Amino acid sequence: MANVICDAVRLVLIGTRNPLNIGAVARAMGNFGFRHLRVVNPYDPAFREARSAVGASEILRHAEQHNSLADAISDCTLVIGTAAGVGRDPQHPILLPAEASEIIRAHGGSVALLFGSEKRGLSKSDLSYCQVLLKIPTSEHHESMNLGQAVAVCLYEFIRHEACPASIVQPATATATDLDRITAVLTSGLLARGYMPAEGRDAAELKIRRLVRRLALNSRDAETLIGILRHLMREPAP
Amino acid sequence: MANVICDAVRLVLIGTRNPLNIGAVARAMGNFGFRHLRVVNPYDPAFREARSAVGASEILRHAEQHNSLADAISDCTLVIGTAAGVGRDPQHPILLPAEASEIIRAHGGSVALLFGSEKRGLSKSDLSYCQVLLKIPTSEHHESMNLGQAVAVCLYEFIRHEACPASIVQPATATATDLDRITAVLTSGLLARGYMPAEGRDAAELKIRRLVRRLALNSRDAETLIGILRHLMREPAP
Repeated sequence: MANVICDAVRLVLIGTRNPLNIGAVARAMGNFGFRHLRVVNPYDPAFREARSAVGASEILRHAEQHNSLADAISDCTLVIGTAAGVGRDPQHPILLPAEASEIIRAHGGSVALLFGSEKRGLSKSDLSYCQVLLKIPTSEHHESMNLGQAVAVCLYEFIRHEACPASIVQPATATATDLDRITAVLTSGLLARGYMPAEGRDAAELKIRRLVRRLALNSRDAETLIGILRHLMREPAP
Repeated sequence: MANVICDAVRLVLIGTRNPLNIGAVARAMGNFGFRHLRVVNPYDPAFREARSAVGASEILRHAEQHNSLADAISDCTLVIGTAAGVGRDPQHPILLPAEASEIIRAHGGSVALLFGSEKRGLSKSDLSYCQVLLKIPTSEHHESMNLGQAVAVCLYEFIRHEACPASIVQPATATATDLDRITAVLTSGLLARGYMPAEGRDAAELKIRRLVRRLALNSRDAETLIGILRHLMREPAP
């Protein structure tokens, strides 16, 4: 079962700057048997340095590099963000690592686990791609963890129960690409019809993307919904 | 209870060489609420560097420095070593982190948790002071963990039962009335635009009602969605 969860999870590092941290993430992945590492807009010299370091692991050498988060998670059916602090008005359900672990196990498909940059964590835009957030319970005075340590704790938690309940057969969850299509159809349709919240166009898109991510769609529902939306935008029959 | 276990445990680093690792240990301790750090024969300039670094934590500045392990653990009533690999003929009971956590809880007094140097781990002599060993379950091909990451995993495990369930403030779930409004708006809008599945009008309504129920909407999302749907059915702006 460890293999199932190890195969399912893609570690996605966004805007990481320190090559030591990228190396530390790869090392923790090797320790716990995870293999899929994706980096989005890494600080370039740092990533090249980490990848070419003597003793760089297979994981690091095979890490995929992407130019956008949407691209990095396009094949994933569940996207989990990680958060140090949590604002006053959380937009997402917030899970402990053990709770996230159960959800990943129950989930049939590929899961992206996102880590933001060392300094700023995940941006609002990054968060709008997430269905849930994972938060490691840390002291309120020292909330922010080192990146490599946070990854180690998450991966340890994901594999700590070797013997685990069998995952249930469920219809495949909608992919990030499906959700992006819905978001695009909705956004363009609304803007064409003069929908414009006070906060402006970008805020509108973020708002719609977050809404769509919360809908818990399976892939069949996603198709239906796109059909429905296209239909709604037609002229009324006379 | 977190305080009890945090007060009980003394982290003991033996012969650590890299100041970044000492700093990482202190950071993880701060994250999880542990305070007692002891270093035995650290590589001296490294320890001075870590301790005097800008932003060095209280924990690091108050770390005790000892010249022998015996001295560092003299007030402890339970000594737990940490091991990467375990030889063919283990001399100690070997515990998973969760098992060690239970033993620490059941134990009344001070507990030392020992970590050896980055390169060699604990020596035979160090091990002779231990009652039990803790081993983090790692892949057999990549057994050896980074020091700061191993400490983070252990401390996380020791306090994980104290963490209250995270799922915090969440908006209220949409009521059946909200869902009925959405279903009604959708159904009438679609039928007005000529949407008619082969199974007929009643089947269409059932299908839409089921879809809407699967969307996991909260009440705020339900309002937004009704607004969006009403908007979509307007004429496109010229």
